[in-house]
Amino acid sequence: MTIMAAEIAQQPEAVAHTLDALRPARAELARLGADARHVLFLARGSSDNAATYGRYLCEVHAGRAASLGAPSLATHYQARTDLDGVLAVALSQSGETEEIVAALRWAAGRGARTVAVTNGAGSALATAADVALVTVAGSERAVPATKTYTTQLAALAVLASALGQADPGFDAALDRTPAAIAAMLDTSPAAADLAAQLAGQAPDRPGESRSEAPGQRGAEGQHLNGGMVVSGRGLAYSTALELALKLEETCYLPAIGLSHADLVHGPIAVLGPGTPALLVAAGDGPVLPGMTDLALAVGRRGGRAYGIGGDSAFRAACLAALPGPDLPETLAPLALVVPGQLLVEALARQLGLDPDRPRGLTKVTQTDNPGAG
Amino acid sequence: MTIMAAEIAQQPEAVAHTLDALRPARAELARLGADARHVLFLARGSSDNAATYGRYLCEVHAGRAASLGAPSLATHYQARTDLDGVLAVALSQSGETEEIVAALRWAAGRGARTVAVTNGAGSALATAADVALVTVAGSERAVPATKTYTTQLAALAVLASALGQADPGFDAALDRTPAAIAAMLDTSPAAADLAAQLAGQAPDRPGESRSEAPGQRGAEGQHLNGGMVVSGRGLAYSTALELALKLEETCYLPAIGLSHADLVHGPIAVLGPGTPALLVAAGDGPVLPGMTDLALAVGRRGGRAYGIGGDSAFRAACLAALPGPDLPETLAPLALVVPGQLLVEALARQLGLDPDRPRGLTKVTQTDNPGAG
Repeated sequence: MTIMAAEIAQQPEAVAHTLDALRPARAELARLGADARHVLFLARGSSDNAATYGRYLCEVHAGRAASLGAPSLATHYQARTDLDGVLAVALSQSGETEEIVAALRWAAGRGARTVAVTNGAGSALATAADVALVTVAGSERAVPATKTYTTQLAALAVLASALGQADPGFDAALDRTPAAIAAMLDTSPAAADLAAQLAGQAPDRPGESRSEAPGQRGAEGQHLNGGMVVSGRGLAYSTALELALKLEETCYLPAIGLSHADLVHGPIAVLGPGTPALLVAAGDGPVLPGMTDLALAVGRRGGRAYGIGGDSAFRAACLAALPGPDLPETLAPLALVVPGQLLVEALARQLGLDPDRPRGLTKVTQTDNPGAG
Repeated sequence: MTIMAAEIAQQPEAVAHTLDALRPARAELARLGADARHVLFLARGSSDNAATYGRYLCEVHAGRAASLGAPSLATHYQARTDLDGVLAVALSQSGETEEIVAALRWAAGRGARTVAVTNGAGSALATAADVALVTVAGSERAVPATKTYTTQLAALAVLASALGQADPGFDAALDRTPAAIAAMLDTSPAAADLAAQLAGQAPDRPGESRSEAPGQRGAEGQHLNGGMVVSGRGLAYSTALELALKLEETCYLPAIGLSHADLVHGPIAVLGPGTPALLVAAGDGPVLPGMTDLALAVGRRGGRAYGIGGDSAFRAACLAALPGPDLPETLAPLALVVPGQLLVEALARQLGLDPDRPRGLTKVTQTDNPGAG
């Protein structure tokens, strides 16, 4: 078993420990954010994908305007924006990404209250913030973030519950997320089958012959030269972005993470037979019908749509699909990403790659030293 | 000459007419936005790329916090966020994209003041807004937006100048943008050469032989199977996003538009020899040194970096580069996109495609009818 696979399997426990650790912080978060008219997220990489979830959740669940900040506005432009009445939430798994620490300090200097979300207890980011939400993922050794990502989502769900009105249904569903994540681990065999189909070892187009051994094919699957598109909408958009990043990092595929709407507004043109689309959706919510329509539209254009989650109509509209969690849309992203993580890990192995150590990446990336890694 | 090429060439005039038409609106915009603590942009597709420019410009030039809204929060989630004190700026070239009209109405209903930026005088969007900034691009007949995009940028520059402190230097540079755009049209032969290099007709790797005629190669250049990555940072990030979208729409390439930082944080792994990187940069500003470092880093990894704009050090770090405009970074995006538009138009023709009529796209896309186009 790879380290990445082992860490994927540790997520139920990591999320449960994180929720236990952070629930008591709700009262303090509610006080800190009582007057906040805007929640500003500051992050990079997979933390930025977690922030995308936090942004939608703050708006949909807590009724707070929210957005993702551009760290370069702090670090390079020293923008003199007025952040009075803003709650700035900075995310970094290590807590040591200098750019994010600098962005948090800039936000505080411009008048914002600050929250850190990090797995690094005692890190620079945790120390710099008014309130630190320290996740309890344990040590993550594989380079692709998995349990540090889902525990960030758990921290953001706690934050949103603190900023919103009391909602016992939301809180009860949050308590169920570790079990829902555990149930998703059972999709591992189906994820491996789907990875094989994507890698071209189980041809889904008749009449093709192939002679190479999987390990000799190098970094590009025979069907994946054109890369992949990963799409989602609303709360699950974050899951699409995260899975696209994982495919890029771990499988070296040019994978594009696009919102449903941005996909329909243009790049759907690239979805020929050579570019499979991976569509992710929660099992309920207002954006699900549109995702099902998108799967059908991809098929009508001769493209290949694969799914994760959704309902039975969504999965029937896809060529193949992995089931998603039994959670409301507001919390589904905590578990919906798991079948995708399993798919990415299996696909990397199918392509003869080591998912634990992708080339060109280190665990703590400093944005301004691209050659240093 | 294609219609797209003709419309690219009309941009100096279109931007000049737009500036003449919109300068008088500054006083009204300044009044409308006097108390605005946040500027919220609402857009899709290439209008969203224009909004990305507007967002950075509002923060850097006008010192106003700004962000891109998610239209689905309005149309699907009916999020009950408090937008009192927010200036909502909705962009749609036609002014008839229903989702954006609905998002503007939602913002107004939640307490925001509203501005429309559209080429559609009398359109639903123009009618619904407190102030309509109607661009003077004339009729755009090619499906890929060019002059409707650059005139949107001009409108956003007028908006930012109205929201910021008086800045005669900025205003004088804005007056020079039509001439700067006109100067960029002279890069057409160099853009065609670069397109040929990208399409594989002028091999940049020795020892390769090729026998097919260009028109028989279909939609994928021999060197472009892995797509392209387009990257920029800060104010020029919008240009990178717009050129990636143009490559996807017009050349059917899986092109990823990434910020410099997001590229360095992960997807740089995909930049093998098979995936060229197109880097765009203004000729000055705090993010330029990092873009030069990125070009060098791509080269060290065995990748191919091509450039648009920057200074001589940036262009020397690229395998080949097109020059950019003589404008300050805050206004460079109005002209920096032009060599890229010329590159996209030439590359489409090199690949045997019709840039005026990409498959699968119509001029006014309604997001929720993906199969209708």
